[in-house]
Amino acid sequence: MGKVAIGVDVGGTSVKLGLLDLDGKLLDQWEIHTRTEDSGTHILPDIAQSIQARIRDKGLEPADIIGTGIGLPGPVSEDGMVYKAVNLGWQREFNVAEELSGLLGGMKVRAGNDANVAALGEAWQGAGRGHKEMVMVTLGTGIGGGVIHDGRIVTGANGAAGEIGHICIRPDDTRKCNCGNRGCFELYGSATGIARLAEEELASSEDESVLRNGRASAKAVWDAVKEGDPLAIRVAEKFGYYLGFGLSIIAGVLNPELFVLGGGVSKAGEVIIPYIRKNLDKYVFHACNAEIVLAKLGNNAGIIGAAKLVID
Amino acid sequence: MGKVAIGVDVGGTSVKLGLLDLDGKLLDQWEIHTRTEDSGTHILPDIAQSIQARIRDKGLEPADIIGTGIGLPGPVSEDGMVYKAVNLGWQREFNVAEELSGLLGGMKVRAGNDANVAALGEAWQGAGRGHKEMVMVTLGTGIGGGVIHDGRIVTGANGAAGEIGHICIRPDDTRKCNCGNRGCFELYGSATGIARLAEEELASSEDESVLRNGRASAKAVWDAVKEGDPLAIRVAEKFGYYLGFGLSIIAGVLNPELFVLGGGVSKAGEVIIPYIRKNLDKYVFHACNAEIVLAKLGNNAGIIGAAKLVID
Repeated sequence: MGKVAIGVDVGGTSVKLGLLDLDGKLLDQWEIHTRTEDSGTHILPDIAQSIQARIRDKGLEPADIIGTGIGLPGPVSEDGMVYKAVNLGWQREFNVAEELSGLLGGMKVRAGNDANVAALGEAWQGAGRGHKEMVMVTLGTGIGGGVIHDGRIVTGANGAAGEIGHICIRPDDTRKCNCGNRGCFELYGSATGIARLAEEELASSEDESVLRNGRASAKAVWDAVKEGDPLAIRVAEKFGYYLGFGLSIIAGVLNPELFVLGGGVSKAGEVIIPYIRKNLDKYVFHACNAEIVLAKLGNNAGIIGAAKLVID
Repeated sequence: MGKVAIGVDVGGTSVKLGLLDLDGKLLDQWEIHTRTEDSGTHILPDIAQSIQARIRDKGLEPADIIGTGIGLPGPVSEDGMVYKAVNLGWQREFNVAEELSGLLGGMKVRAGNDANVAALGEAWQGAGRGHKEMVMVTLGTGIGGGVIHDGRIVTGANGAAGEIGHICIRPDDTRKCNCGNRGCFELYGSATGIARLAEEELASSEDESVLRNGRASAKAVWDAVKEGDPLAIRVAEKFGYYLGFGLSIIAGVLNPELFVLGGGVSKAGEVIIPYIRKNLDKYVFHACNAEIVLAKLGNNAGIIGAAKLVID
């Protein structure tokens, strides 16, 4: 085994870890449980212990390992400061890169926000390969984002660049988002948003639809769209409007080469793209138009991007 | 005289030129006419001639000059390609950096979009000094923008990053922008936008206002606001909504430390800021909030930023 890097993707229920060569090939991957009890104080020691055990098992020498990158659910500054990560039980501000480095005997450690790190993974080894200006948009329970400029993460002043789920796209809406504001992008373009659009469509019409049999989740909507269900197609049109409109604004600010769509909603596949495409075309400033593609790395984007943090 | 750099800011009627030391001090500045006739073919030769004459007058040696930076009204790629610059009569795609370098005997030349270059000037020597994450917003006839990340210009895939004047903030509006789209930011937040908001306010009410005596330009509106004119204050509130709302979106994408406001509207002074501030606070995602300050370099931002292009 030549030189390797370690990528760590910390979630609220599990931590994914991977061993990669410097060309981005995943040589080994494993998972541990995220112990959020006791204010999350076990998380970093558990990760360090797991990494050290794997290093021993593989017979790696310290000189073989160039470092560990770690992605976390919360804003992370350029130099590794975490302000708060409620999903992990962390309420204090501290330098996670320094702390994990200490636990790993001084190993080089870099940290980033999980959505940003996933974007870096896709830019390096996934759908964004060969592109230096890219925005990843993760369509899950909410909307996450990661801005890649010149092949690197744009972190922003407080580690909150790419927090596109909370840009306001409907100032007239009265419903509140969890963040306290109104009209946030993720209220309409996420999996939750699609389910709500479906509910509204079902309530406002008497039309037959397969969505009336069971829960109208985002997955159910796209399955119904694939079957040609007219009501589901109307929901897809509304989703497409909100997402295409939101992307048009981001494109006007950044002029990226492409948008990479990830997260649960993207698993519906290529069917989602035309609905977004036509609205992006309609609202974007012509010089700023961009490609839209689906993410390729799935759940591995995080560990791959995390490893890339230390490979640069 | 130690080492110097030359900054050039090309506009549709005049070209501003400056000689700067490497700390950003403007040692000399002058202007020439922009000859847009004959498809703008005289512009670069005129600039080269003017620079060479100044170099001779100052007794500078080639070794003293580290290069020339040039800002142009139109999208410019990272490596100096201009796609079109209608204000200069240029209809062809060509590499302006290479062409000007050829005319200057192989001198190092870098080119950028004028709004981006002005942003770099403000980041380096003006209101953004000491900040690495900044967005400049130029409020003139339209709205121009320049994104500074890590102290450098974000150019985007086609040189159109920061074209924020054409992000759509009112998809419901039916009026067309010059770009062909509807609801563009600059229809509401520019000097022209303020004048239109004033017209609408005057037409929709019978209230007395100093704005009824003469042309209700942006300047007249702010002068009236300073005098406490209630109708003008209502116009300022509407402008503040549109500008604050638009900035909240940009902040959500980029999480800059600050917005620097330049252009004609900013000459009204600090009076404009509270109207914008309160709407930015209202619509922005809390972690992405940013300062708002006025630009400091006025018309010199362009030549200073252009020189910085070659100083890096």
